Amino acid sequence: MLKDLILKNRSYRRFYQSEKITTEQLREWIDLARNSASARNAQSMKYILSTEEPLNTLIFEHLAWAGYLTEWKGPEYGERPSAYIVLLHDTTISGNYFCDDGIAMQSILLGATEAGFGGCIIHSVNRIKVREILNLSNQYEILYVLALGKPKEIVVLDELEGSDIKYWRDENQVHHVPKRPLDEIILQVK
Amino acid sequence: MLKDLILKNRSYRRFYQSEKITTEQLREWIDLARNSASARNAQSMKYILSTEEPLNTLIFEHLAWAGYLTEWKGPEYGERPSAYIVLLHDTTISGNYFCDDGIAMQSILLGATEAGFGGCIIHSVNRIKVREILNLSNQYEILYVLALGKPKEIVVLDELEGSDIKYWRDENQVHHVPKRPLDEIILQVK
Repeated sequence: MLKDLILKNRSYRRFYQSEKITTEQLREWIDLARNSASARNAQSMKYILSTEEPLNTLIFEHLAWAGYLTEWKGPEYGERPSAYIVLLHDTTISGNYFCDDGIAMQSILLGATEAGFGGCIIHSVNRIKVREILNLSNQYEILYVLALGKPKEIVVLDELEGSDIKYWRDENQVHHVPKRPLDEIILQVK
Repeated sequence: MLKDLILKNRSYRRFYQSEKITTEQLREWIDLARNSASARNAQSMKYILSTEEPLNTLIFEHLAWAGYLTEWKGPEYGERPSAYIVLLHDTTISGNYFCDDGIAMQSILLGATEAGFGGCIIHSVNRIKVREILNLSNQYEILYVLALGKPKEIVVLDELEGSDIKYWRDENQVHHVPKRPLDEIILQVK
């Protein structure tokens, strides 16, 4: 069932770092994105893969993690992602990619989840540094970094009470994510 | 397998209009989006549903279809969508929704596909008219309209040859979508 897969596909930020992901696995998941919808079929999303050192660490050093967990500086060594996908927009193909980024990343993450992995979409990226590391031409805009690995944390969805949507960690390091109820996000036509 | 579902989830534009979709079905699919990732967990995506006349026709009249099929004015009566989801951004929640739109619509469309339906993400929307029809306050930005129904067309993925990414219909009205090969969209680090 798709629903089981969607529920299992949480934003994970701590991983069993020694559990490797191969380039071939990343390619399979990107193939899911390749076969997903693209605005005007322009397909301007491009991908750079990292599954090995030293590139993994070089990328890791330029990411910021979990803005709401102000005490936490990100996963420590041993719990870091074992692979990354840098999502790019090829500006020579199209000026606008509409919602292709979200479509592609949801397809990739569902693929990773089905294979027993998981990840997190990271927008807080030092793009200047990552561009340098990847020796990336200005033709490409860096959109997101997908951090991937074998999840080493429990993520729980809670029903939102009140209006505080900030995720948080309890004393057992379980990560809680308050979700708005369905009747709050579906509007009635007046 | 997720891959089968992704391959089946094409952008469909002609439907068996008499095959109804219920509000309950739309709610189930939106629940998949609700349980998907959201940037900073802000969850600013809101949804308006239409499964009945006259609202279906009122929405339909303000959509433009398949930009590359210049001879085709959109699905004729009998082949129109039987339901719509209007995707909104609630600007009082957050100024930016990052890629939540694509994530949400991919979850919804995969849910629809699993249930034997399908749809198309439409960006060419007369937003002024749709806002009037829905009596929608300026708090909400209209992002997309998802047109949904029981697909009545065959959509085939082809490997892109050359650079012409325009989809097209053959003499049997089969819809062809050229996709870039995997090695074109995955870049090598130099």
